[in-house]
Amino acid sequence: MVEAVLHSAGIFKKLIDSIKDLVSDCTLACTRNGIRMQAMDASHISLVSMQLNSTGFQQYKCSKKFNLGVNLVSLAKLLKCAGANDSMKIKASPHNDTLSLSFTNPDESIISQFEMKLIDISEETVSLPAENNVCIAKIPSGEYQKICRDLLTMGEDVRIQASPRKITFSSFGQIGSGGFTLQQNIEDENSKISIITDEKIDLTFTLKYLNLFAKAGPLCDFVTLYLSPKSPLMVEFTMGQLGFIRYYLAPKVDEANESDDEDDDKDMKQD
Amino acid sequence: MVEAVLHSAGIFKKLIDSIKDLVSDCTLACTRNGIRMQAMDASHISLVSMQLNSTGFQQYKCSKKFNLGVNLVSLAKLLKCAGANDSMKIKASPHNDTLSLSFTNPDESIISQFEMKLIDISEETVSLPAENNVCIAKIPSGEYQKICRDLLTMGEDVRIQASPRKITFSSFGQIGSGGFTLQQNIEDENSKISIITDEKIDLTFTLKYLNLFAKAGPLCDFVTLYLSPKSPLMVEFTMGQLGFIRYYLAPKVDEANESDDEDDDKDMKQD
Amino acid sequence: MVEAVLHSAGIFKKLIDSIKDLVSDCTLACTRNGIRMQAMDASHISLVSMQLNSTGFQQYKCSKKFNLGVNLVSLAKLLKCAGANDSMKIKASPHNDTLSLSFTNPDESIISQFEMKLIDISEETVSLPAENNVCIAKIPSGEYQKICRDLLTMGEDVRIQASPRKITFSSFGQIGSGGFTLQQNIEDENSKISIITDEKIDLTFTLKYLNLFAKAGPLCDFVTLYLSPKSPLMVEFTMGQLGFIRYYLAPKVDEANESDDEDDDKDMKQD
Repeated sequence: MVEAVLHSAGIFKKLIDSIKDLVSDCTLACTRNGIRMQAMDASHISLVSMQLNSTGFQQYKCSKKFNLGVNLVSLAKLLKCAGANDSMKIKASPHNDTLSLSFTNPDESIISQFEMKLIDISEETVSLPAENNVCIAKIPSGEYQKICRDLLTMGEDVRIQASPRKITFSSFGQIGSGGFTLQQNIEDENSKISIITDEKIDLTFTLKYLNLFAKAGPLCDFVTLYLSPKSPLMVEFTMGQLGFIRYYLAPKVDEANESDDEDDDKDMKQD
Repeated sequence: MVEAVLHSAGIFKKLIDSIKDLVSDCTLACTRNGIRMQAMDASHISLVSMQLNSTGFQQYKCSKKFNLGVNLVSLAKLLKCAGANDSMKIKASPHNDTLSLSFTNPDESIISQFEMKLIDISEETVSLPAENNVCIAKIPSGEYQKICRDLLTMGEDVRIQASPRKITFSSFGQIGSGGFTLQQNIEDENSKISIITDEKIDLTFTLKYLNLFAKAGPLCDFVTLYLSPKSPLMVEFTMGQLGFIRYYLAPKVDEANESDDEDDDKDMKQD
Repeated sequence: MVEAVLHSAGIFKKLIDSIKDLVSDCTLACTRNGIRMQAMDASHISLVSMQLNSTGFQQYKCSKKFNLGVNLVSLAKLLKCAGANDSMKIKASPHNDTLSLSFTNPDESIISQFEMKLIDISEETVSLPAENNVCIAKIPSGEYQKICRDLLTMGEDVRIQASPRKITFSSFGQIGSGGFTLQQNIEDENSKISIITDEKIDLTFTLKYLNLFAKAGPLCDFVTLYLSPKSPLMVEFTMGQLGFIRYYLAPKVDEANESDDEDDDKDMKQD
């Protein structure tokens, strides 16, 4: 049996909204320590990993580990019934085929109560990429969203180039080429942009997925990108003590780059 | 001849918008006492009754009773030409086949003037259900709108259950079941929710119509539901001295309930 | 070579947005004095004339006159990448087949840089109508936008009638007829409406084009209409020192009016 209370139904709503377009059916693993979900997207290209810590809930009880098979599209529909400032209670037990959700408005005059049907789903074994982070770039999540959306008007891929205190997102297509360069202000300790890297990074990703990850933007003010040569990108959104959501995406393999790494310094790759 | 001046074209705009999706062609009956409209919706399932009192207008003159045949969709289009803070003047006469509308902006620098073609329509005799109100529930119209809209994501019907100081709107469908419970705070004299009932109410209605009625929500802060066992629901929105708009809808006949009323206490009906 | 810096990318964005639905491919003529564009719309019915003065830019350099062939739809897409408060730099040279655009956000932490492909386009020789302005009407551009949009619900044409201190825009169609009268308050020196005319004006135009011109509304608070009997209308939006955008449209020829001008005083023409 799991029973969990969260002050803000809104944060759970945003969380499910940020996953449902990538993964529709998934397994929520409930344990004493919290609720965890790891899944590949429907086209088996990207990975999502979500962790909600028991300590981040206002109340959390789970007597023993068990799995909930959930359709996230249905769950997102139910969560639309929650008011922006409602608190939320989730309840489920291994003996039951429904997930129970209830929302209470601030003055407790309106209580809504829903039973959602659970689904049978065989647990996917997902192995997350090894952590091997040469470059860590922290940028405002609003800027991340805008850049990913704007570059879609240019092309289908995004080239990410990073060097100390500087990261560039660029694209090219029919109408031309171009991109965004974000720079850390070293004189400003509170710079909203921070790029730490040991070596130069130059990787290309499918823009569509970076845009799908951007749906988690409303969860927090900043997003952190973890980049390493020839390794998957990890895009992380944290929700304070409550936990995090992480997305993984492998870079596109570029034959020119494979055989010859010397063109790293060109500003725009247009092959 | 009728000639009427209203301080706010906006309220008339909202009024027509709240009817036009139910009733397209209707008869406005103009008398010394005001303007009245009663009609069934196109599928002959629900009823609308609107009353505008002569005393609610800034000026009102009507020498003798006559009927105006109006297409409400055209009227709603013309009313879009009114600014939010414009005043409005309506003019029509039995000898004329047009309705004259004019709008004046607050500083009187812009006056708009329209002639709308009237239509020939035989007056429908509509008999309103007898008033027999066992339960009167007053709730914020914003909540009514949200509940009706949210339940559409669940199912096609809404079950309304009322007991003293408590009303529940619930639904069920493919993804699960659930609903909203609104409770009157008896310790708070200014409680925004008030439910007065002599006996327990348990009725089911087609959600689509309750959503159509919800379009009148912008007309006032509160909506009042009048409920009686086996009788049509009346949903009332009042506009102060100006009058009201009322919608009527018969409950769905449920055979199980007909033969056996004892399942009133079950929280959710899922047959 | 032309190199120009503008404090606000936003104004350039609005400018291109106000032209791109009329003219997709055009020639920007760059000279020492600024950038000029004159083109007919795709259906060869209306004319657009844009002038950006070198003195309106924060920096402007152009060594010798040359033409840039630009697809405005692509340019509008690129300009969406500019933040609302970004500054903008444009660069192009006759030897290059791209236009270079860069945007810088207020704290200079984000710089975006784009290369847009130029197009081959033979310069259109456009002869602007002679200036012969009997009537000059200045009205708030928000009102102009609202009137043009609202009249579309009535009909396809707009009849513009002007007399000293008064201008009427009217239309008629299936649902009826009507229009807007704007009046100058002679007692108020700061009247937002000013209509100066030597003689009575009565002209009819295709509403669709007046609506397309209205897209320039966000560029400035007021729009000026220049009207003369049997002559094209000029609709002008000015951007202070930076320049202007002007649209030209010939009136519809009405045979009744041609042979007989005496019906000028009728309020609404419904032939």
